[in-house]
Amino acid sequence: SLRHGAPRTEAEPELSGWELAADAVPEDSLWPLPQWVRTYPRQLQLAPSRFQLVHGAGSSAGPGCGLLQDAFRRYYEYMFGHSRRRTWGRRPLAARAEPELFQLQVVIEAGDPGCDRHPHLASSEAYHLTVTEPVAILKASEVWGALRGLETFSQLVHEDDYGSFLVNESEINDFPRFAHRGVLLDTSRHYLPLKSILTNLDAMAFNKFNVLHWHIVDDQSFPYQSIYFPELSDKGAYSSNLIYTPTDVRVVIEYARLRGIRVIPEFDTPGHTQSWGKGQKDLLTPCYNGGQPTGSFGPVNPVWNTTYDFMTKFFKEISSVFPDEFIHLGGDEVDFSCWKSNPEVKEFMKKQGFGIDYAKLESYYVQNILDIVSSYNKGQMVWQEVFDHKAQLKPDTVVQVWMANNYARELSRVTGAGFTAVLSAPWYLDYISYGQDWKKYYSVEPLNFPGSEEQKKLLIGGEACLWGEFVDATNLTPRLWPRASAVGERLWSSSNVTNLQDAYKRLTHHRCRML
Amino acid sequence: SLRHGAPRTEAEPELSGWELAADAVPEDSLWPLPQWVRTYPRQLQLAPSRFQLVHGAGSSAGPGCGLLQDAFRRYYEYMFGHSRRRTWGRRPLAARAEPELFQLQVVIEAGDPGCDRHPHLASSEAYHLTVTEPVAILKASEVWGALRGLETFSQLVHEDDYGSFLVNESEINDFPRFAHRGVLLDTSRHYLPLKSILTNLDAMAFNKFNVLHWHIVDDQSFPYQSIYFPELSDKGAYSSNLIYTPTDVRVVIEYARLRGIRVIPEFDTPGHTQSWGKGQKDLLTPCYNGGQPTGSFGPVNPVWNTTYDFMTKFFKEISSVFPDEFIHLGGDEVDFSCWKSNPEVKEFMKKQGFGIDYAKLESYYVQNILDIVSSYNKGQMVWQEVFDHKAQLKPDTVVQVWMANNYARELSRVTGAGFTAVLSAPWYLDYISYGQDWKKYYSVEPLNFPGSEEQKKLLIGGEACLWGEFVDATNLTPRLWPRASAVGERLWSSSNVTNLQDAYKRLTHHRCRML
Repeated sequence: SLRHGAPRTEAEPELSGWELAADAVPEDSLWPLPQWVRTYPRQLQLAPSRFQLVHGAGSSAGPGCGLLQDAFRRYYEYMFGHSRRRTWGRRPLAARAEPELFQLQVVIEAGDPGCDRHPHLASSEAYHLTVTEPVAILKASEVWGALRGLETFSQLVHEDDYGSFLVNESEINDFPRFAHRGVLLDTSRHYLPLKSILTNLDAMAFNKFNVLHWHIVDDQSFPYQSIYFPELSDKGAYSSNLIYTPTDVRVVIEYARLRGIRVIPEFDTPGHTQSWGKGQKDLLTPCYNGGQPTGSFGPVNPVWNTTYDFMTKFFKEISSVFPDEFIHLGGDEVDFSCWKSNPEVKEFMKKQGFGIDYAKLESYYVQNILDIVSSYNKGQMVWQEVFDHKAQLKPDTVVQVWMANNYARELSRVTGAGFTAVLSAPWYLDYISYGQDWKKYYSVEPLNFPGSEEQKKLLIGGEACLWGEFVDATNLTPRLWPRASAVGERLWSSSNVTNLQDAYKRLTHHRCRML
Repeated sequence: SLRHGAPRTEAEPELSGWELAADAVPEDSLWPLPQWVRTYPRQLQLAPSRFQLVHGAGSSAGPGCGLLQDAFRRYYEYMFGHSRRRTWGRRPLAARAEPELFQLQVVIEAGDPGCDRHPHLASSEAYHLTVTEPVAILKASEVWGALRGLETFSQLVHEDDYGSFLVNESEINDFPRFAHRGVLLDTSRHYLPLKSILTNLDAMAFNKFNVLHWHIVDDQSFPYQSIYFPELSDKGAYSSNLIYTPTDVRVVIEYARLRGIRVIPEFDTPGHTQSWGKGQKDLLTPCYNGGQPTGSFGPVNPVWNTTYDFMTKFFKEISSVFPDEFIHLGGDEVDFSCWKSNPEVKEFMKKQGFGIDYAKLESYYVQNILDIVSSYNKGQMVWQEVFDHKAQLKPDTVVQVWMANNYARELSRVTGAGFTAVLSAPWYLDYISYGQDWKKYYSVEPLNFPGSEEQKKLLIGGEACLWGEFVDATNLTPRLWPRASAVGERLWSSSNVTNLQDAYKRLTHHRCRML
């Protein structure tokens, strides 16, 4: 059967529970659906005792490529590790008539395979996979494409009722539709143990996501253990053991890297910073009432030089701890009421000629932070308000559109102004409702906004956001997966892959495999 | 502080995350809130190496009472087992000034303590607990009250920052407001592994629930492995390993019994029986179209004698496998369209003089089943339609009210006709929504329906229902708990325990302890 991103036209009944169609075809197991798939009826058998994932002839990567070696081990385990009926070569394969597939040869074509690098926005994730007797060949320009192809290959391999591992002869040509395919985790409202984050990275790899947007701190807690400012987590974390040490952070980054996933940390300022104030005196704005300080604090104080001294040092650390080219600087939901109450802030407003337009003060602050972070050669992501309030952004700033109200118009504005955009508005997965809400997430067409071809190109992807008000280690996985898988396919597969019944059939398989 | 089911009147701020009030009082840890609590500021210390749960003088139970011995072991573990800073008597208690509590003495006052019995609707769960130096005393008429009191005692014990276990001197007099406090699990839409069911029984015990309503089979699958009719699960289960063997069922019943929880199995007929038809030929009604059988089947065939022969034998088995006095016979949502299409059924309707009133046929069928089950000396629970459609019910039939639309009126009707009722309508916990929906479940007042004092007495309790369309082992626990805890307190505590802020504070503690 041939499928070039084309949905089936036949009406297919919804499947209930575990019931799977008896006439399942090989591509029914693929998620997200590759850009181009051709499968043949001829099946090849894999013997766990003999089958190998190896570097192919002409590959620029070899046994010294730790990233691929680790991926080979991992995907071998995914394909064969669960089987309790493992034959380990003792059972004659001749029991079945199928010819055997002996190897998957992985060929990295670029001169530098990138084994020790970090993935980035422009990394190639394209791959080409052919499965024919006696060896399958996976070609990719860079290791990132090989990782995606290994995932696809593993999805093609299935176990029959007799415990034999089979794969149909097939050819797949694949690449992502969007370059930025993210999941936002929030470790401030509830702390997430390292294990939860790593498990989530596994699930992301199964769905070809490539960005972990780590909303690491917020008003509620500051679990990031800073090297320069350890008091931030000493005082701002929920407790002394609910923190991410420098080692923890390195573990997350490396675990993600091995799966082709970037880690973009978010340190959201000037709002959402109540927890920062606990460990860093004189950082937040003192709020006033009737001429007297109330003892409460508002957003980061944009007036004092000490604020920028702190931020300069703090973001120097962040820029060095997190290798990604981008840092997310937040900038959302700044409440002006405390600034408005503070005499020093009011005086500053007058001096700067901002009048009573506190959005200008916000932009002034953000501008300073953008300049600081730019000086460390980091690109910047910001929430849409930073654009809306007219801060002067660097041309390569990525604006994240999150407000559900008419997000198409916002995408149009952001890209119309020449900025790169990432879409989250329709994918706030912390909001739950009864039933199969994945269909709602799946049915979003990101490019359905008014704009030129050039503008459409500026939308580089999207993110499924799981804010942490009602999420912790006890419910993270079942709340996020497989709902986020819907977003994963929307961001990877061709725009015409929209058939819900076909998607449901594949997603059912995919969930089972992920479990 | 004294609390006689009285909510606090002070305005208290909502607590966020793990932050707990510094001025926490001992009863802030209790859930569900006992009927009468008095606590004193004086604290007693418990040394894990010395503290014992023992049978008190004058108790009719002794070391031969396996149920209590098991509960002693379990509650010791709950109280001290999690502590990694266990001192095992090596650290001198003199480090603290508090006097020591050496024992909890449990005294069962009834002549027969009931150690080997099963709990039933009329079992006493009342208990009286006094905690004073040097021993605490827990008195209960039957072992079931002792189990509830052990849970309460364990909730009073807390560990301070230095790893010391403390309990305030206190006195508690407690009993349930309603006798039937249930959780419905559905193992047909998705199979639940034994472990999930047992974990749920633990959670139920933590919340003083006393009925597991086991909706074991339905249209989707038949996981109950019948002794007389093994083909029912051979053909009707999702797969041959997704079944409950006779041993599994015994394990569930015994695990529940040891926690004072009844297991009421539901075998819902005549509707919701598609899975029965796979393993039992000629049980379901063949549907017709244009004078020809379509190959589809409807509800159980109420016309043939073979149906009743089968049901007689089947319910004989069920009556013997499940020791509870009640069996739930279902009777909800019967779709008449197939019956209407079937010539034999139409002929039967005519012969019986039912006209075109298929509710009469349904009642005819249900009547037969009720008679069969009565002959095995079992009481019956049914869904409200059985009452609505005017089946002639035994006087002790329990009618379960589930339809959300004006359930107060239905409660009024059912109890007005002299029948016992159980309320589920406001507690369908499979329906989810964003945020703290526990408040909605908590705020239900079950007796808020029109009726006399006599009628109010006929409402014996309620059930939190977790239907299985979107629930399996991956999300059962975080979806059900602590949301069901809200129902647990509503059914146990005094009707005037309604303060949401006070409940939130206690529920936060309680969730933490359950985790």
